[in-house]
Amino acid sequence: MYVIAVYDVGIDRLNKVRIFLKQYLNWVQNSVFEGELTKAEYIKVRSEVKELIDEDVDCVFFYHVRDKKYLGFDEMGTRKTNIDTII
Amino acid sequence: MYVIAVYDVGIDRLNKVRIFLKQYLNWVQNSVFEGELTKAEYIKVRSEVKELIDEDVDCVFFYHVRDKKYLGFDEMGTRKTNIDTII
Repeated sequence: MYVIAVYDVGIDRLNKVRIFLKQYLNWVQNSVFEGELTKAEYIKVRSEVKELIDEDVDCVFFYHVRDKKYLGFDEMGTRKTNIDTII
Repeated sequence: MYVIAVYDVGIDRLNKVRIFLKQYLNWVQNSVFEGELTKAEYIKVRSEVKELIDEDVDCVFFYHVRDKKYLGFDEMGTRKTNIDTII
């Protein structure tokens, strides 16, 4: 399955969430990771993120499609070149 | 088509982009809008956003599926209740 994770997480927990997500997905924009996951990985990722965030304050969405071919994509502007060096 | 727009836009242009997107899509998270658009609306939205951002600095992604039924979704944490009152 192809997964897009978008998050609005407090600064105190942000790096932990990013470091964790980076193990499974690609960081593509400031608050967005995406990539191919198995069903088992997806369950693990959600479970772990749930532990890392403060559910009363933070918010994480996971969008997913069965196959990347079902997902259209357009981008504009400039991707940060240093996005992988921030954490 | 069902569209998810995620953006990383400089503070000087942020409100203009949000006010514009809010005319066509629902604001669901700090940097995320989503909703149903016709193909014509989608072209118009991309064209207008391109005018509003600084393409050398900002970055906007549009993910889309032909029908919302192809898009899986899971969320955790808390959606901001006042997200629609920020702008």
